[in-house]
Amino acid sequence: MQLEISPEVWSSFKFFGSLLLLKMVAMSILTAIQRFTHKVFANPEDVAHDKKNCKVIYNHPDVERVRRAHQNDIENILPFFFIGFLYCLINPVATTAILLFKVFTASRYIHTLVYAVYPVRQPARALAWAVGYGINIFMAVQVLLSAL
Amino acid sequence: MQLEISPEVWSSFKFFGSLLLLKMVAMSILTAIQRFTHKVFANPEDVAHDKKNCKVIYNHPDVERVRRAHQNDIENILPFFFIGFLYCLINPVATTAILLFKVFTASRYIHTLVYAVYPVRQPARALAWAVGYGINIFMAVQVLLSAL
Amino acid sequence: MQLEISPEVWSSFKFFGSLLLLKMVAMSILTAIQRFTHKVFANPEDVAHDKKNCKVIYNHPDVERVRRAHQNDIENILPFFFIGFLYCLINPVATTAILLFKVFTASRYIHTLVYAVYPVRQPARALAWAVGYGINIFMAVQVLLSAL
Repeated sequence: MQLEISPEVWSSFKFFGSLLLLKMVAMSILTAIQRFTHKVFANPEDVAHDKKNCKVIYNHPDVERVRRAHQNDIENILPFFFIGFLYCLINPVATTAILLFKVFTASRYIHTLVYAVYPVRQPARALAWAVGYGINIFMAVQVLLSAL
Repeated sequence: MQLEISPEVWSSFKFFGSLLLLKMVAMSILTAIQRFTHKVFANPEDVAHDKKNCKVIYNHPDVERVRRAHQNDIENILPFFFIGFLYCLINPVATTAILLFKVFTASRYIHTLVYAVYPVRQPARALAWAVGYGINIFMAVQVLLSAL
Repeated sequence: MQLEISPEVWSSFKFFGSLLLLKMVAMSILTAIQRFTHKVFANPEDVAHDKKNCKVIYNHPDVERVRRAHQNDIENILPFFFIGFLYCLINPVATTAILLFKVFTASRYIHTLVYAVYPVRQPARALAWAVGYGINIFMAVQVLLSAL
């Protein structure tokens, strides 16, 4: 058989998938900015250029906060890439699929904002996380049912 | 060219792939359960609702155990999603492919059970890990050989 | 619609994709070698066979260095698997696509060598990382533009 996909679902998946990828890899830059701002690094060779002011430490709160946000992307966005692709291929209703991709992407951008850019009080982060999490589970259940 | 796949291999991949995804994302819930049970969190805003009883610490053994199990899923299940998909597309023997997906899934469920749910003595976890690890390598070598 | 791909781009993606997967999962072995060499482990059950000489600690520099290299693979190679696949499907110029896959793979092998196998002074690691990082962003932008 050949893999069949609706053109509008595929186009939407490529659009939101690449937006999510760009957001996710931006976390590396955000981490680097925190490291250079606070002059804290994770390896001896990274501080060799300025041993006076730079330190090797692993518990700077601003650095670790961005790293936790990055890790949360790894735990949620990478699974989305997989299950979202399978979901594209089980012939979902196009408007539903596009809505899910859109809301998932928004929830992950908001998650990063309220976690790593401008921390606000809970439950902001918990809600942003839960929306994306629920969408991953919804798609996984649909894919599972389609394979029975 | 078009991507060609055997219907039964594809159906099996969707079935076990979504089972693996559901197991993997369940680790977030398992972590949350440990955090709320022991009242230990990773951010100041997460303890603001009950500063008396909740603490921000990073070394609670029960929480960290679940997080290590989650990380091991990231290191093994996410690569499976990729290489398993490529393997589906190189026209493998259907019974072999389905067996590999089934055993991989079982090995990862067992890994979580003996690591994060009900820890037992080694080599239980090492064996569960090794089975899945070997399957990933086997599939990667097959994909590599198919591309020469 | 059906997913269309150039045979030579697809062959190259399978080749370099499986080479990257094999490199990435090899980090688990590299970590295990460091753990057994230094007799430092992450779980009580892992030291039960030799409580006299083995310790549960989380800050051995040689172990943590390999784990950071592994984490960097997770942050860069797993996104490559996704965006590289989408990039294959937007009908790129074959020579460009193959060159990107080749250079990305080389950059990640070099990254591991200079980070975890034979650490050298910066900017060796920073440059190796930046090359792969830039390729991921380039492909993501191309995929995004193709979906507008």
